[in-house]
Amino acid sequence: MQLLLPNINSPVDLRKLKEEQLAELCKELRDFIIDVCSCNPGHFGASLGAVELAVALHYVFNTPYDKLVWDVGHQAYAHKILTGRKEQFHTNRKLGGISGFPKINESEYDAFGVGHASTSISAALGMAVAARLNNEDRQVVAVIGDGSMTGGLAFEGLNNAGWQKANMLVVLNDNHMAIDSSVGALDSYLLNITTSSSYNKFKEDVWNFLGQNRFRNLIQKFDNSLKSAMLHQSNLFEALGFRYFGPVDGHDVQRLVQTLNKLKGIQGPKLLHIKTQKGKGYKPAEENQVEWHAPGMFDKNTGERIKVVADGFSPIRYQDVFGETIVELAEQNSKILGITPAMATGSSLNIMMEKMPDRAFDVGIAEAHAVTFSAGLAAAGYQPFCNIYSSFMQRAYDSVIHDVALQNLNVTFCLDRGGLVGEDGATHHGVFDLAYFRCIPNMIVSAPMNEHELRKLMFTAQQPNMGPFSIRYPRCNGVLADWRCQLETIPIGKGRKLKDGEKIAILTIGHVGNFAVNAIERLNAENIFPAHYDIRFVKPIDEEILHEISKSFSVVVTVEDGTVVGGLGSAVSEFFTQHSYTVPIIMLGVPDCFIEHGKPIELQEECGFDEYGIYNALKNIK
Amino acid sequence: MQLLLPNINSPVDLRKLKEEQLAELCKELRDFIIDVCSCNPGHFGASLGAVELAVALHYVFNTPYDKLVWDVGHQAYAHKILTGRKEQFHTNRKLGGISGFPKINESEYDAFGVGHASTSISAALGMAVAARLNNEDRQVVAVIGDGSMTGGLAFEGLNNAGWQKANMLVVLNDNHMAIDSSVGALDSYLLNITTSSSYNKFKEDVWNFLGQNRFRNLIQKFDNSLKSAMLHQSNLFEALGFRYFGPVDGHDVQRLVQTLNKLKGIQGPKLLHIKTQKGKGYKPAEENQVEWHAPGMFDKNTGERIKVVADGFSPIRYQDVFGETIVELAEQNSKILGITPAMATGSSLNIMMEKMPDRAFDVGIAEAHAVTFSAGLAAAGYQPFCNIYSSFMQRAYDSVIHDVALQNLNVTFCLDRGGLVGEDGATHHGVFDLAYFRCIPNMIVSAPMNEHELRKLMFTAQQPNMGPFSIRYPRCNGVLADWRCQLETIPIGKGRKLKDGEKIAILTIGHVGNFAVNAIERLNAENIFPAHYDIRFVKPIDEEILHEISKSFSVVVTVEDGTVVGGLGSAVSEFFTQHSYTVPIIMLGVPDCFIEHGKPIELQEECGFDEYGIYNALKNIK
Repeated sequence: MQLLLPNINSPVDLRKLKEEQLAELCKELRDFIIDVCSCNPGHFGASLGAVELAVALHYVFNTPYDKLVWDVGHQAYAHKILTGRKEQFHTNRKLGGISGFPKINESEYDAFGVGHASTSISAALGMAVAARLNNEDRQVVAVIGDGSMTGGLAFEGLNNAGWQKANMLVVLNDNHMAIDSSVGALDSYLLNITTSSSYNKFKEDVWNFLGQNRFRNLIQKFDNSLKSAMLHQSNLFEALGFRYFGPVDGHDVQRLVQTLNKLKGIQGPKLLHIKTQKGKGYKPAEENQVEWHAPGMFDKNTGERIKVVADGFSPIRYQDVFGETIVELAEQNSKILGITPAMATGSSLNIMMEKMPDRAFDVGIAEAHAVTFSAGLAAAGYQPFCNIYSSFMQRAYDSVIHDVALQNLNVTFCLDRGGLVGEDGATHHGVFDLAYFRCIPNMIVSAPMNEHELRKLMFTAQQPNMGPFSIRYPRCNGVLADWRCQLETIPIGKGRKLKDGEKIAILTIGHVGNFAVNAIERLNAENIFPAHYDIRFVKPIDEEILHEISKSFSVVVTVEDGTVVGGLGSAVSEFFTQHSYTVPIIMLGVPDCFIEHGKPIELQEECGFDEYGIYNALKNIK
Repeated sequence: MQLLLPNINSPVDLRKLKEEQLAELCKELRDFIIDVCSCNPGHFGASLGAVELAVALHYVFNTPYDKLVWDVGHQAYAHKILTGRKEQFHTNRKLGGISGFPKINESEYDAFGVGHASTSISAALGMAVAARLNNEDRQVVAVIGDGSMTGGLAFEGLNNAGWQKANMLVVLNDNHMAIDSSVGALDSYLLNITTSSSYNKFKEDVWNFLGQNRFRNLIQKFDNSLKSAMLHQSNLFEALGFRYFGPVDGHDVQRLVQTLNKLKGIQGPKLLHIKTQKGKGYKPAEENQVEWHAPGMFDKNTGERIKVVADGFSPIRYQDVFGETIVELAEQNSKILGITPAMATGSSLNIMMEKMPDRAFDVGIAEAHAVTFSAGLAAAGYQPFCNIYSSFMQRAYDSVIHDVALQNLNVTFCLDRGGLVGEDGATHHGVFDLAYFRCIPNMIVSAPMNEHELRKLMFTAQQPNMGPFSIRYPRCNGVLADWRCQLETIPIGKGRKLKDGEKIAILTIGHVGNFAVNAIERLNAENIFPAHYDIRFVKPIDEEILHEISKSFSVVVTVEDGTVVGGLGSAVSEFFTQHSYTVPIIMLGVPDCFIEHGKPIELQEECGFDEYGIYNALKNIK
């Protein structure tokens, strides 16, 4: 049999197929995704689960004229492959290659760039309202997972779309999962909604039955109000002004096509609930959905995941240092709790969730809630460690200011994925936190240079009345042979001098300090002897060190894995100019632009703060 | 008859009253609020509507052991008066007086500080979980309005509380209003929920009827699944795991007491829906709820609002310049749309909503949605002006970064209430925006010094392909006799020299430039002649001016109505140190702490950037 996929270069080609051929195309697409992702890692599970949906949507809707907004975008590989990016798919997430997420300037089929959860309904509503204003008969579709549906922004979007009576379709791609298991009352609700659908049928039956029957007084008693309640209020989404359809098997592509075709003709806000399976069609991924969310390389025949073994010793990940240390601390301090919004596995808080299930909370995709919930716990005397990736903390910014910092509550923020994260790209780089936290009063803003420092900062943060305390660290391995160490308090706002030197002082914050150590070794070989300070705290900053530096050195180089606008370099600048110090500063870090995807080391090089970047910057100082 | 209120100094006194006396107490409380607020303005309407609720809650629950979290806090005056702050109530919102909002360090009865909407459920959940961990039999109550319920954070809180099966009560104080009319599908739903309640009763009747009756096959057919659907899924809140009660008349204090008493004994998450009227008991306020949200001073007998007439000419408010100018621009540019999340009256976008109802959108309390919805509109070719108060923009921070800036979409952010807002205090001061926006790539960050500048910046922002463009201005009158002017483009990143001078250069951003003008006049009289630059753009900053200044002056003074950490002063510092310029900088602005409430002029003086603050700073330069 001739393969179909080789001839599909755009949705136009897809639409030439017969409905009966679509299942075969889905199979080929799935094989293609498995094949490519086994060598070039990506978001595997979600994309396998949305193959039929992507095919059906592009088959039924007139993309790119009709607009398709994928929430998060983990699930959009089939979409990418169908929309002219089949040949580039092997470059997925690589430097210079296609992005792992839909991206507005990558393809006209990517109606809206995504990466963070819960944005699709609001964005699609904007497009639907624009179509209405333009009198365009344009279909707008948002595809959102049940995990993303727990994010407040999705609710705000639904509530407003229902009210605006916009012409749009929301496809709820319900696989009962976020990255970890989906969390929240909504999840139970969706599980039971099949019930509700037999109930929908039942209420019609009862209604008809009562209608033709003799229970007139019962009927009259409740009258129209009842009728309207019966007809309109049986469902969460209907309460928000959406017509609800489903649930439908999301792996039955023909059924999907037929359903979508029917929905096309219906005006107003509609929600189609489809049930899918994450990892569908690849057994190992079906069986362990968390691990196969983004499995790395694997042998596609055996399903064995290929671990990349590093040369020599391989230090532990910062994530695991966090996960192990919070348990260790919590064993000593009964007030410590762990909170994460849907990053349990990624942050390694799952270690605590297993060992102390009562004291560790995955609150689902709900970053602002995670922080305000932590504030409530702190107001009641607990010491929450709230672990959120740096780029997702942007979603809880007001909760940090208004609910935690303003009340000076004892909440420790562990900002995982601080700095350039690599292959996930622009949406996921955690490069703004030092700047956006530094301007908040009462906040302690710190970053550890290695595993021991992380442990000591965590130990310090849980001392009494520390107030809001942020500890940020990257997604990578540490640098030490033995990550365990005695826990001890680090004085707030005290940096440490790692190396004496002359003329040039390097000030680093966090893990990049290790890049500087290596750079200095090279420089020493060339008779350049900079001093090196690990500043540890961007706020409060170590003024003693800054006074010392300003008097002893002729140039300062700051190094941070974050934006140079408002971060460490900026803090040192403020201090110098306010004290009339005249030492020039060279700021190494992430420049004032969005950085794309690639390996962390490639991106650090691009930004010029990797080992060689630091080396070059210092070497060129006259 | 002897008055009751004089003898109520705490909830303990309240609980000594008989249930029958409570209605009388409510009357007295209401009179007291009307009396005091007529002379000392505050959030009048919401508090009048929640008198019975406050009395009933403190009567039934054992506060402060039991925890009461008021959402937003506009409605909490009766609560404050009942909890030991009757005598201080006349100092409400004044410098050194009590706060207009519940505040954690003002009273043990204020379980959680508020000001922004939609936080109460998450915070209360934290307290409820803490009580569970402590094995305390503590009741936790969140009181939230229907307006606040549209905020995504409230939904996140409900979803998580329902899932955690926390022992807590949410009182939905439904007055069908936010500050303006409540907006969203949820609002219509709540309006119809009385229907649903007769439906609730009906379903029980039907169920009982069917249960005892002969329709066995019908019953068996749908079995338990039906039963569970019937019992649990008839209501939005029930879908989220809450038991729903109500609606109840929120002005029937005895009924409230009885209902709350019953609910006390029920475990798990419960929601009590009460219907109230904003402004209840004061006729003018009942009749115009928007105007009487915070009416200023008034004659309590006639209901006439007392306008404070300024000496001499009184310039227009920046708000109205915005409101008039967006209409003027939108008449020329058909792509311009106006969006605000529940700040229609406050921002004066209501002018556009009236004149161009199709092109101006109040999306309800949903800041993140307002921004992502704007992004969707911009992706479809429109030019949205999204108007959000500076302190509320913190709630949409990720939407700004991830949905707008990263995609370089043409969204204009009009940040109203930029700077110290005055009586609303710490939660509402808009002092972080210059810092938190400055670190975002692609953003243009500007602030007008007067009405003409605001108009010109708005005109500039809607030129093609400007990308994300922020214009921030304070809540106050402008300074010009005639605010209208020719609209013209301001070159991006160009400041303007207002006055030549010597030795000292003053750099100002925004309205505070006028303070500097006055200060300079005083200084000139003392033979000090500083130069004055209105920098206009914090980003991109005018490098030409900065080069010029660094060469011609020996000190630079920056002035901004915002935090000195990360804002204008910081931007100038970064530039100077990176260019090896050795000019010291004195930064005037909001220091790195939270500023309480008071008149704007009092707070500006406290921070030292009012006219005299600038004058003194310059005078003291050696």
